[in-house]
Amino acid sequence: MRAALLEGIQKIKMTQIPKPTVGKGDVLVRVVACGICRTDMKAYQIGQRDLHLPRVLGHEISGIVEETGSEVTSVQPGDRVQIAPGLPCGTCDYCRKGMDNLCDHVEIMGFHYDGGFAEYVLVPENGVRHGVLNKIPESLTFYEAALTEPLACSVNMQESVQILSGDVVVIFGGGPLGILNAKLARIRGASSIILVEKRAARIEAAEKEFDHCINLMEENAVERIRTLTAGKGADAAIPCCPDPQAVADSLAVLGKKGRFGFFSGLVMGEDAPHIDWNLIHYKELAVYGAYGCSSNHNRTALELLSSGMVRVSDMTTRILPFEELVQGIEMVARRDDTNLIIDLTI
Amino acid sequence: MRAALLEGIQKIKMTQIPKPTVGKGDVLVRVVACGICRTDMKAYQIGQRDLHLPRVLGHEISGIVEETGSEVTSVQPGDRVQIAPGLPCGTCDYCRKGMDNLCDHVEIMGFHYDGGFAEYVLVPENGVRHGVLNKIPESLTFYEAALTEPLACSVNMQESVQILSGDVVVIFGGGPLGILNAKLARIRGASSIILVEKRAARIEAAEKEFDHCINLMEENAVERIRTLTAGKGADAAIPCCPDPQAVADSLAVLGKKGRFGFFSGLVMGEDAPHIDWNLIHYKELAVYGAYGCSSNHNRTALELLSSGMVRVSDMTTRILPFEELVQGIEMVARRDDTNLIIDLTI
Amino acid sequence: MRAALLEGIQKIKMTQIPKPTVGKGDVLVRVVACGICRTDMKAYQIGQRDLHLPRVLGHEISGIVEETGSEVTSVQPGDRVQIAPGLPCGTCDYCRKGMDNLCDHVEIMGFHYDGGFAEYVLVPENGVRHGVLNKIPESLTFYEAALTEPLACSVNMQESVQILSGDVVVIFGGGPLGILNAKLARIRGASSIILVEKRAARIEAAEKEFDHCINLMEENAVERIRTLTAGKGADAAIPCCPDPQAVADSLAVLGKKGRFGFFSGLVMGEDAPHIDWNLIHYKELAVYGAYGCSSNHNRTALELLSSGMVRVSDMTTRILPFEELVQGIEMVARRDDTNLIIDLTI
Amino acid sequence: MRAALLEGIQKIKMTQIPKPTVGKGDVLVRVVACGICRTDMKAYQIGQRDLHLPRVLGHEISGIVEETGSEVTSVQPGDRVQIAPGLPCGTCDYCRKGMDNLCDHVEIMGFHYDGGFAEYVLVPENGVRHGVLNKIPESLTFYEAALTEPLACSVNMQESVQILSGDVVVIFGGGPLGILNAKLARIRGASSIILVEKRAARIEAAEKEFDHCINLMEENAVERIRTLTAGKGADAAIPCCPDPQAVADSLAVLGKKGRFGFFSGLVMGEDAPHIDWNLIHYKELAVYGAYGCSSNHNRTALELLSSGMVRVSDMTTRILPFEELVQGIEMVARRDDTNLIIDLTI
Ligand SMILES: NC(=O)c1ccc[n+]([C@@H]2O[C@H](COP(=O)([O-])OP(=O)(O)OC[C@H]3O[C@@H](n4cnc5c(N)ncnc54)[C@H](OP(=O)(O)O)[C@@H]3O)[C@@H](O)[C@H]2O)c1
Ligand SMILES: NC(=O)c1ccc[n+]([C@@H]2O[C@H](COP(=O)([O-])OP(=O)(O)OC[C@H]3O[C@@H](n4cnc5c(N)ncnc54)[C@H](OP(=O)(O)O)[C@@H]3O)[C@@H](O)[C@H]2O)c1
Ligand SMILES: NC(=O)c1ccc[n+]([C@@H]2O[C@H](COP(=O)([O-])OP(=O)(O)OC[C@H]3O[C@@H](n4cnc5c(N)ncnc54)[C@H](OP(=O)(O)O)[C@@H]3O)[C@@H](O)[C@H]2O)c1
Ligand SMILES: NC(=O)c1ccc[n+]([C@@H]2O[C@H](COP(=O)([O-])OP(=O)(O)OC[C@H]3O[C@@H](n4cnc5c(N)ncnc54)[C@H](OP(=O)(O)O)[C@@H]3O)[C@@H](O)[C@H]2O)c1
Ligand SMILES: [Zn+2]
Ligand SMILES: [Zn+2]
Ligand SMILES: [Zn+2]
Ligand SMILES: [Zn+2]
Repeated sequence: MRAALLEGIQKIKMTQIPKPTVGKGDVLVRVVACGICRTDMKAYQIGQRDLHLPRVLGHEISGIVEETGSEVTSVQPGDRVQIAPGLPCGTCDYCRKGMDNLCDHVEIMGFHYDGGFAEYVLVPENGVRHGVLNKIPESLTFYEAALTEPLACSVNMQESVQILSGDVVVIFGGGPLGILNAKLARIRGASSIILVEKRAARIEAAEKEFDHCINLMEENAVERIRTLTAGKGADAAIPCCPDPQAVADSLAVLGKKGRFGFFSGLVMGEDAPHIDWNLIHYKELAVYGAYGCSSNHNRTALELLSSGMVRVSDMTTRILPFEELVQGIEMVARRDDTNLIIDLTI
Repeated sequence: MRAALLEGIQKIKMTQIPKPTVGKGDVLVRVVACGICRTDMKAYQIGQRDLHLPRVLGHEISGIVEETGSEVTSVQPGDRVQIAPGLPCGTCDYCRKGMDNLCDHVEIMGFHYDGGFAEYVLVPENGVRHGVLNKIPESLTFYEAALTEPLACSVNMQESVQILSGDVVVIFGGGPLGILNAKLARIRGASSIILVEKRAARIEAAEKEFDHCINLMEENAVERIRTLTAGKGADAAIPCCPDPQAVADSLAVLGKKGRFGFFSGLVMGEDAPHIDWNLIHYKELAVYGAYGCSSNHNRTALELLSSGMVRVSDMTTRILPFEELVQGIEMVARRDDTNLIIDLTI
Repeated sequence: MRAALLEGIQKIKMTQIPKPTVGKGDVLVRVVACGICRTDMKAYQIGQRDLHLPRVLGHEISGIVEETGSEVTSVQPGDRVQIAPGLPCGTCDYCRKGMDNLCDHVEIMGFHYDGGFAEYVLVPENGVRHGVLNKIPESLTFYEAALTEPLACSVNMQESVQILSGDVVVIFGGGPLGILNAKLARIRGASSIILVEKRAARIEAAEKEFDHCINLMEENAVERIRTLTAGKGADAAIPCCPDPQAVADSLAVLGKKGRFGFFSGLVMGEDAPHIDWNLIHYKELAVYGAYGCSSNHNRTALELLSSGMVRVSDMTTRILPFEELVQGIEMVARRDDTNLIIDLTI
Repeated sequence: MRAALLEGIQKIKMTQIPKPTVGKGDVLVRVVACGICRTDMKAYQIGQRDLHLPRVLGHEISGIVEETGSEVTSVQPGDRVQIAPGLPCGTCDYCRKGMDNLCDHVEIMGFHYDGGFAEYVLVPENGVRHGVLNKIPESLTFYEAALTEPLACSVNMQESVQILSGDVVVIFGGGPLGILNAKLARIRGASSIILVEKRAARIEAAEKEFDHCINLMEENAVERIRTLTAGKGADAAIPCCPDPQAVADSLAVLGKKGRFGFFSGLVMGEDAPHIDWNLIHYKELAVYGAYGCSSNHNRTALELLSSGMVRVSDMTTRILPFEELVQGIEMVARRDDTNLIIDLTI
């Protein structure tokens, strides 16, 4: 089968590898769509210590069940499915509480196992048994379904940060994760969504959908948000970018008892801005970390997409054939698009 | 000033009474709009033990500040205001926690004090100090503002019952409270709102706005909801009618871990249906009572209206001049309208 | 092996049956202790529609691993273990959220499978994989460990009803479940625990441990609790008996915003007392159902016992050899003891 | 009356000032006991920008009502009382929700108004009306009651951080606030309390009461806690000292989904240790700020003391007469004692 093998830093080989054999509990999925995200981009550009090469990347996968192991009953060939990439152990404390993204032994498709930038992807028994395969209804396209996983990460975030009806919510970053978080905040009832970005094109796109969009290069976001909230400050803030400035700004713009979603790991450069963490103490803020998503979050996200509550069809601004994967990764690096998908069928 | 004095059962006298004198902490409001609700209707039709007559009824009030006592700083003459009808003591345990609807010594305008079916209404010092007067922005009409209090009761309910994004919510009753609860569930992110009613006209009106409307006279609501939820049951149910059947049906249609909003006191007649309360135990349901609203809920409701999140302009289906109050009360008894308002200025 | 086979109503045969064969995922446990609870008593005395006979009853089991299937890694022969009796499917929505007591396909040991009133009990693969076998530390006796399951049911209840530090908690019923709930409320920080009972012997035993014990036969519980709480009412109430009077009393003694634990299914006889459910509405009570326990609750309960936080050694007031099982069941019916255990080793 | 007037940095004058006159809503309290806390110490040693001098410090006050204004009904001369030092405005959003420590206009006794290091202290109308005066039962000594306010700060903290039964809780700092937080965690059901300190004397005292005490000067706290929790990490951590190292250690020792109480503002010196805030993201931690206490927290704390749930009689390790206030402040600076109280009656 066709596959894109990552063999080294910035070295992807478009090649043929053997179609995986299907064990009695496994499921083989013919990939239709696989999104490229910044994690894929980083693995390609700078590698990752724990990633053993060669490896097929890609973890935002939707496709059609091709073959099922003899003991599989949950899906059957022909089913349209979306794959939650985390394979939980199923028996640790976190798994047993349904928080399998925190599983002590979690493995990730597209990282520990081959992922979706290939004609077929094998979902191992462990994943099948713990519900990583989710049927997608006819109403949902494969492209939309490929956004389930990033939406699920946002669901995880907002379950903790508890966006409620009437909240003024500030999102930093207008990339795919910022947009998904903003859309989700909307359906949770946020009365006002303020999106902060640096890139004019992203601002422009977001302006059609959200209440206030602030271009960081042109305005002081902190002052503007203070004005917008009549000095009270925002109810919740979620940086969807790794910039420490977004944390500093979040803590500054939150009102007393505000809630902060720690969604992005920070990259602290030499000239990192000062973050006044003491504001958490003085303003009695609550800060919640969120990292990845459980298979429950994945199911919730898929329902939000299937029911039409969260609409993402406009987010996929570029679709590329398999052959152009490397170009696609470079586009992601350049942030040309909101969401970019590889279609294995074109 | 003109006033409608309730003097006995079914006896309202449209008369002149002295304009109240304004103490140093009081505020006099010129009434513009005052909604008629079922409580007013019942007080008129069958009386109420604790209601000392004569009394001016009416507690869904909006108007313009006419005069303020010498020590009042929070509002000034000319301000457009809405009045939260509960006057809390401000010092009991419940008041101190911001749950002033549960105040041990609460008094109600339109019940313990004269209400809004008069040219002017006096807001006593106690109320002024505890925030029952809320300024309404230009964007909001007096009619819309008069719906703040019933919306606030719904806010109270849904804060407990925690409607969340993705919930399937069943509302029994398509009167004003049912509609407000349904609208509120919508902005809290309910993915599907099922409204159950008995009256064809109300069903018809609701069908434009909500996902599924079930006419109890034509269909078995329990079966229909089971089908709609593919056997899983609903996430939340709120009867907005005093009929025990709606409770029996709610407990039947809720899925495991479902949430039930006990919003309406039940009128248990001779032939009251059997309610299987044990379902709370076996399905691990949660049941939350809500009764009235605090001044905080009132403020939240007013914000939801002011920001345009909850739109109620279509709810006021009839506006009557002061002179037609008694006819209005009879219309409420007949449930001819969704919401009926007395306009004191026409 | 020796086994007590329930063959019909009030018909238990003490007999020999074949020792179960151990499949590759199964675990065979040599039973040491197995509690008799009222469910066992009822199955014996009046049967149960869904219980297919003959069957070995008993679900409060502790023992020693005798043999493990070839694929089992979680325990090994010689391990001292306690068994959570519910066998979850592991794949339904409830299982995936860690609420496996609500599993759509749950099976119960001692009901769908043979239980602990036998020399050995087979834990099927399904249970082994989903964590129903829990190792017990040396510090804990087998008798204490046999109380894990009923304690776990109480943990489930109090997680919902959220007993907090400072709460005044009323428990109705001084049987094993009442006592366990009271002990648990204590370590959750209840400032005052009021136990209501009908039986003098149970009252007497409880008086050493809890703040106030009320003998229903001698006092009006509602009045006494009102006095004890200076008119404010209790914060939480949990009836641990099937008597509707306990619900009526709970709703009467709870203060505003009080919490009610619906722990026992009600047996509504002819002369059932009137329960004023409307109090939930007017006092804004919260009511939470709890039914059984998940394997997570079981683990939590075992930790509470192992760490010494909840001490239950004084609760087992009678230990009988296997041969006296039927007499034991009759003692449970007579409520002679707080907790009664069959010791298979004596 | 006698008073200790702070007139400048390190300049307290023991002098006579006029006894305050009592307005119609005010209450004059004869001070019996007033604790010295580190805030008083800092105001004395380095001043505070917003503190207008001369001022009488002291905000951990208990005493006897001497005189009440004509309109005061809540207390009467002779009542034993404790004073919550924060005077809320009563009308801002925070006050109305019962979170008056976050009041937009809060004033503090012993800071904006004269405090308790004097023969008498005047509680202004604003405070009286909003419940800052709390009667103390006979069972409680004035010394114990003087610890209400710091306990209330801990109540505020643990309401957010939600210490629950079974939790492993780590407290950094064995000063009065660390000890109070540890005592409170105990009654909320913590199964294991680990106290980390630098000072041998404080460790020694704490060892009698708490499960594990770690002397930072002798052991690596992070490693020890990992061992104590078998690698799982702690459930909650609360630094009660301004040392950034305690935050770094907290984030390191918390297990996944752990909760962190941001109780102390950090003093970030030149050589501040690196704090890996990203751990909040990766371990999905929750961080809650707490600052001061509301009058509700104060009441809760007083109940915890009055009911005997939290026992603090052993905490007051030194009692000094009024004349030795300055020496007392210096003792606090040296951390010679756990809690030090000025007794105005000796
Ligand atoms: N918690 C989780 O489970 C999870 C899952 C997926 C992703 N994430 C996180 O989500 C973040 C966003 O992902 P993405 O794919 O949407 O990335 P993206 O496409 O790079 O978007 C981030 C956007 O934020 C902008 N930005 C940078 N600094 C900013 C600031 N201070 N204020 C406002 N905007 C700023 C960026 O502009 P420039 O490009 O000019 O810098 C960029 O347009 C990533 O950092 C990742 O760590 C978290
Ligand atoms: N918690 C609070 O704070 C609060 C505040 C205000 C009102 N309420 C409660 O809210 C309820 C509704 O108020 P409203 O002004 O909207 O009353 P409404 O105009 O009488 O509306 C109730 C509607 O429900 C219908 N209905 C009756 N039985 C039903 C059933 N079993 N299933 C579905 N619909 C049914 C009624 O039809 P018929 O007329 O044919 O019976 C009526 O159309 C009142 O009972 C009141 O107690 C509560
Ligand atoms: N939710 C769950 O998961 C779960 C699990 C196990 C058990 N349960 C429930 O827990 C209940 C108690 O179990 P148990 O084994 O402790 O039963 P038990 O031994 O029968 O104890 C119940 C006690 O309550 C007394 N009682 C009866 N009516 C009372 C009243 N109105 N007020 C106060 N006390 C009253 C009984 O006295 P008399 O004997 O004289 O009536 C008896 O002493 C059972 O009803 C069962 O349904 C629930
Ligand atoms: N949130 C609130 O409302 C509130 C209210 C009151 C106080 N506080 C905070 O609570 C803190 C403690 O107050 P306190 O009166 O108990 O102070 P304290 O008497 O100074 O006690 C703090 C103790 O912590 C020790 N310590 C320093 N660094 C440590 C570390 N890394 N790990 C463990 N222990 C360490 C100190 O030792 P050394 O003296 O040797 O440094 C000292 O013994 C203050 O910082 C204050 O900011 C907060
Ligand atoms: Zn796991
Ligand atoms: Zn009150
Ligand atoms: Zn299941
Ligand atoms: Zn305030």
